[in-house]
Amino acid sequence: MKLKVKDLDIATGGVRIAVLNYLDAEELDIHHLDRIKIKKGKKFCIAVVDISESEKFFKKGNIGLMEEVLADLKAVDGDDVEIRLEKKPKSVIYIKEKLEGKKLDYDKIYSIVNDISLNRLTDIEMTTFVTSYYVHKSNMEEIADLTNAMIKTGQKLDFGKKIVVDLHSVGGVPNNRTTMIVVPIIVAAGYAFPKTSSRSITSPAGTADTMEVLCDVKISVPRLKKIMKKVGGFLIWGGSVNLAPADDKIIQIERPLNLDSPVQMAASIMAKKVSVGSTHLLLEIPVGRETKIKKMSQAMKLKKIFKTLGKRLGIKVRTVITNGNEPVGNGIGPILEVKDVLYILKNDARGPSDLKNKSLLLAGDILEFIGVGKKSRQMAKEILESGLAYKSFMDIVKAQGGKEVDPDELKPGKFSYDFLSERDGYLSGYDNIHLARVARFAGAPRDKSAGVFLYKKAGNRVKKKEKILTIYSNNKVKLEHAVDLIKEGKTVILRSSRNKK
Amino acid sequence: MKLKVKDLDIATGGVRIAVLNYLDAEELDIHHLDRIKIKKGKKFCIAVVDISESEKFFKKGNIGLMEEVLADLKAVDGDDVEIRLEKKPKSVIYIKEKLEGKKLDYDKIYSIVNDISLNRLTDIEMTTFVTSYYVHKSNMEEIADLTNAMIKTGQKLDFGKKIVVDLHSVGGVPNNRTTMIVVPIIVAAGYAFPKTSSRSITSPAGTADTMEVLCDVKISVPRLKKIMKKVGGFLIWGGSVNLAPADDKIIQIERPLNLDSPVQMAASIMAKKVSVGSTHLLLEIPVGRETKIKKMSQAMKLKKIFKTLGKRLGIKVRTVITNGNEPVGNGIGPILEVKDVLYILKNDARGPSDLKNKSLLLAGDILEFIGVGKKSRQMAKEILESGLAYKSFMDIVKAQGGKEVDPDELKPGKFSYDFLSERDGYLSGYDNIHLARVARFAGAPRDKSAGVFLYKKAGNRVKKKEKILTIYSNNKVKLEHAVDLIKEGKTVILRSSRNKK
Repeated sequence: MKLKVKDLDIATGGVRIAVLNYLDAEELDIHHLDRIKIKKGKKFCIAVVDISESEKFFKKGNIGLMEEVLADLKAVDGDDVEIRLEKKPKSVIYIKEKLEGKKLDYDKIYSIVNDISLNRLTDIEMTTFVTSYYVHKSNMEEIADLTNAMIKTGQKLDFGKKIVVDLHSVGGVPNNRTTMIVVPIIVAAGYAFPKTSSRSITSPAGTADTMEVLCDVKISVPRLKKIMKKVGGFLIWGGSVNLAPADDKIIQIERPLNLDSPVQMAASIMAKKVSVGSTHLLLEIPVGRETKIKKMSQAMKLKKIFKTLGKRLGIKVRTVITNGNEPVGNGIGPILEVKDVLYILKNDARGPSDLKNKSLLLAGDILEFIGVGKKSRQMAKEILESGLAYKSFMDIVKAQGGKEVDPDELKPGKFSYDFLSERDGYLSGYDNIHLARVARFAGAPRDKSAGVFLYKKAGNRVKKKEKILTIYSNNKVKLEHAVDLIKEGKTVILRSSRNKK
Repeated sequence: MKLKVKDLDIATGGVRIAVLNYLDAEELDIHHLDRIKIKKGKKFCIAVVDISESEKFFKKGNIGLMEEVLADLKAVDGDDVEIRLEKKPKSVIYIKEKLEGKKLDYDKIYSIVNDISLNRLTDIEMTTFVTSYYVHKSNMEEIADLTNAMIKTGQKLDFGKKIVVDLHSVGGVPNNRTTMIVVPIIVAAGYAFPKTSSRSITSPAGTADTMEVLCDVKISVPRLKKIMKKVGGFLIWGGSVNLAPADDKIIQIERPLNLDSPVQMAASIMAKKVSVGSTHLLLEIPVGRETKIKKMSQAMKLKKIFKTLGKRLGIKVRTVITNGNEPVGNGIGPILEVKDVLYILKNDARGPSDLKNKSLLLAGDILEFIGVGKKSRQMAKEILESGLAYKSFMDIVKAQGGKEVDPDELKPGKFSYDFLSERDGYLSGYDNIHLARVARFAGAPRDKSAGVFLYKKAGNRVKKKEKILTIYSNNKVKLEHAVDLIKEGKTVILRSSRNKK
């Protein structure tokens, strides 16, 4: 059947979609979500059909195409195209098998993951796959197959190094910008550390958001290779390289229902690590009331999953479990966090000691892990305190298009609010979830200067009217929202004496 | 945030969708598939967010709205609207619980089904619900709750009769237009029979498609009530009344993956029956190689599910298992089927005896079921042969806006092809799936005149060059496609002697 192209002027960024009028669809015996092959000359494209029930909005004889389909066909408004019904991809049959509880072999898993990465499956089909994996607890072989397929269908970086180090924190703790200190220490010690980080999803800043205060974090693969050769490491946003793209699409399906099984989390993280060529991964699992992992037993289970999966994927994994109950560092929000990091790297007394100590612990662990020797923690400390780590960090920043900045010249938001203690007492601690929300209400991470600076940590004594924290923002209304939230009283927890809660 | 409306000129017929530019979405911290509340003056609407990544196609400050959203807000291109992030509906939490394998109580199931019927859930959320039900085998209580919720969220018809009869065939057998003969027999016997039928999905004709040759099948509820009062029965397309709308949406999710568990099938059918107020349902289960139910054991299981579900829903169910291996009647396709039906109702010798006998069997069963007595089959025969059934049928046709027609004046397609036997032998039978496809290739059911007429049935002797069947179509190209298919040799199965296959 010949149809006239109507440019819908929309890009989905997902599966290719074509809209047919119901009369044409009936004539061709085509149903909602069927697939059609659209041909224009020698070019063709497979699209999923959406059917418009209304003649008023969408005329018979027209076919509405989204940006991606138009691009595939090099078609414009008014062009003639030819369509015919196309069979479903085979992967849909395999998805059904998985739903029925059958084990899938690697070829079938690859076929599904490949179709996901190429935007060939609809939300219904992908959701069925994701929920089937969720419900039918998969064995490790299947998970490793899934991870391998996600890696194979994306870009794999190879920097030609024997040891490639990586660090991943399971997340949920505000600030915790250890990565920006650990990477330069390890690089200064002479090891490759290609670090891809995420942007914030629900936190006040991801490492990529914070690093972006100083330099580019969206960097092409050829440029990455040059940086790696020159300085031995980088700190970029993972989304700028096409690593395991199927994983990103699976996460999009999981988000609306908050589906995240530990196994799927492990597969997702490992896919990204193997894709950058990592050989050694230090996994930090913060355990705490408001972090992702709330109990030690969960942490131990996750540790085992990562170890087993690592073995199958050929990547060594070492785990460190940390206290996730308290924020680490003083600043929360991109600029405030960068200041913390720079003070530590420059051995300025204003650098928060908890962040410094945790970074040294992790860096030491990595050095020990890759076989540097028993004095690895001491070595990390020497690299940091000698200024070598700062030098490495500046090499990375400059290679990524940034320049050296004085942390004192980095200014947080021009509007601010000091939160004072109502009475004498001790700080019992912060509610991490509320604290993150206050920083986000103030504008972080989009407003780099927005966030919260903490003067007190858990256990500190506070006097009446003493400053506990300051909220910063460049937007007065946003600051007010953040202040309203903190005044609700759930963020800062005080107690009367040193020992009682 | 204030945004300017852009009319997207598309109707989804499903969930309400609004498209935001990624810059606005970032600013508001809104993600793909989040929900927003859109306000224009006092009107508001909850929509699901789609994010456009391209500034080129979709400008910052604009919000693209689909037809349904525009209608809710009474908004047009260029209007200003206000948006804010909206929480997920509670039903999404319950869907997650079901996914985790928990049993849901009626209130939770109702909440999910109600949101489905009101188009409040995305494909991802609905698919998670459907696959969870599929995987975690639900008990009968839950299935009854699901069915009840589907009924409650749709229209329920009440004709004020003590006994309301219904008939349902599980399907898969070509022609099988017993309904159009059974309904008038039962109505002539004095019982209410409000029959809603489906249109064809993959078959050459549904009862609604065939009935449409003679009269309207899309009829409003007030008119249905009048018809019921006047003639005691009707034969309409179920889609014209809003019965259990959630069921239709669930079926749309099941289609792409061919999900149909017997339990879900039962829930779906029963929801429609209870919605028209049926008290007695005769369920026909054709068992055969190419029907939905292939083995007697499956039929027995289905029978039990319907019985149990019927008890919980307050509707009596009787089951009859029939031979589904052979097509019933001579014509396949709307007009050819109507001819068969009219010949039988008019006691014309050209009426196919298999269709007549099967109709009498079913009508007799129904009469016995509702307590007419042991001679119920004889009674059905008398009603048919006395012409009373024909009179009732014509009352129904006229009440639905049709008029009496002479079956000899109903002409099948103007192009035809006679399929002749290649040799002497016996007809072993037809492949139902291929036979249905031949009729569809010829244009059925959209082309009412298209289809296949069978001269021979299984066991009949055929001579070389004798006509086995004729294919009809109003479209020469379509006829050729059908002829090509039948020439492949899989539709008609011949054998050399009377007994061997």
